[in-house]
Amino acid sequence: MEKLSIVKIGGNIIEDENALNNFLELFSNLDGKKILVHGGGKRATAIASKLGIESKMVNGRRVTDAETLEVITMVYGGLVNKNMVAKLQALNTNAIGLTGADINSIKSEKRPVKEVDFGFVGDVKEVAYNSIDKLIQADFTPVFCAITHDGNGQLLNTNADTITSQVAIGMSHLYNTSIYYCFELNGVLKDINDKNSVVKHIDSKAYQQLLDEGIIADGMLPKLENCFDAIKNGVKTINMGNTNMLTKENDNFTRITL
Amino acid sequence: MEKLSIVKIGGNIIEDENALNNFLELFSNLDGKKILVHGGGKRATAIASKLGIESKMVNGRRVTDAETLEVITMVYGGLVNKNMVAKLQALNTNAIGLTGADINSIKSEKRPVKEVDFGFVGDVKEVAYNSIDKLIQADFTPVFCAITHDGNGQLLNTNADTITSQVAIGMSHLYNTSIYYCFELNGVLKDINDKNSVVKHIDSKAYQQLLDEGIIADGMLPKLENCFDAIKNGVKTINMGNTNMLTKENDNFTRITL
Repeated sequence: MEKLSIVKIGGNIIEDENALNNFLELFSNLDGKKILVHGGGKRATAIASKLGIESKMVNGRRVTDAETLEVITMVYGGLVNKNMVAKLQALNTNAIGLTGADINSIKSEKRPVKEVDFGFVGDVKEVAYNSIDKLIQADFTPVFCAITHDGNGQLLNTNADTITSQVAIGMSHLYNTSIYYCFELNGVLKDINDKNSVVKHIDSKAYQQLLDEGIIADGMLPKLENCFDAIKNGVKTINMGNTNMLTKENDNFTRITL
Repeated sequence: MEKLSIVKIGGNIIEDENALNNFLELFSNLDGKKILVHGGGKRATAIASKLGIESKMVNGRRVTDAETLEVITMVYGGLVNKNMVAKLQALNTNAIGLTGADINSIKSEKRPVKEVDFGFVGDVKEVAYNSIDKLIQADFTPVFCAITHDGNGQLLNTNADTITSQVAIGMSHLYNTSIYYCFELNGVLKDINDKNSVVKHIDSKAYQQLLDEGIIADGMLPKLENCFDAIKNGVKTINMGNTNMLTKENDNFTRITL
């Protein structure tokens, strides 16, 4: 099977224009077929607050009411996504910006109300990997923002890490698929206070050991659960680290395999 | 050659949710391959004013400074475009929302500063009709907002009527292309005070006559100039009227041919 790379960047890169420009150059130089997924960052919160919309958080998670969804659609789907596409075009990457509504690529279901009503938040149900592949086969590079739809005309806010892993699982039907999760750290760290204590390789066995030793905890726990879910469902390799892992020289990041 | 319809709607439809839903149903039911182009309307102005950005007008035309361009990118490229795509998906039209930056579809040039500096406004230079056709051949329905790019990473605000005619001229290399300009009136009117005085057919000769008689003036003049430019450059038919012209029963609109 042909190789496909799916790269995810978060708010820390999007908010820093130099970091974003550096990243987009690395992404453009990445060999082979590829997909970009981006989160939103604080831009949406800043614009919401200017518009007089308060950000509501429950248990540390944002609640997406109708007004917040509008801001997210404007900022992630418009401002961030389309500027990134324009910059990629300038780097000769033939990008196409997408939400999950476009070509019905990612269908989700509004999260059921239990203890908390998260509002217009969607959990991914179905990735139209054959449709996404039509874009890739046409030599276009999909750039997804963290918005999906329910198929009934409703856009939904969806976690960008989840979009990345679900799209990767879908594309694994057609490609030898790798994920690159770019984030602030150099990778999964043995010692959170030592940024150079990167665990370079984690397989299922090592993962269990790290869990037992309490090395994987807090914010890293859902990220790695998400990774192993993808790995068990067909994704070949997941790489976690800073954006420099996209350069060929660097091997100081975490590689996750089955 | 196969038929292709390019439909343009303006702010009056976008701002009225019922009118928009009705239109999207008519558009979805339209036979054959098709493209939608939408303007922005007052939504951008309202959001800009909430964000404390003043709309600047020179000679009745909006000046697009950097802040205004951001709002336009958010509102046209995000909010309006992506909600329309989600609604079209619910109507089983496999829509894909685009700016001219996506797949490098519409390249433009920042308008040179003469008496007036219009700011980040682009005049269309090149339509990548073969790339747009890859989407159409994949059974996707392109939905363009009124944003283009300069190829160097800069998005630019571009008139939606111009985008429509330029995309139509491009697609005429591959298709028997018709334009539908949906607007408030039933068509070109002989008597501006009589909404039923529709001129049903205008060809080059009739156009000259209407010009001589002063029937075409003011706002209609640039619209029709734009139409005849498209007709002379390969577009087969241009229809002007309200959205009901998309129904098969209605013939009360203006049809323009060479």
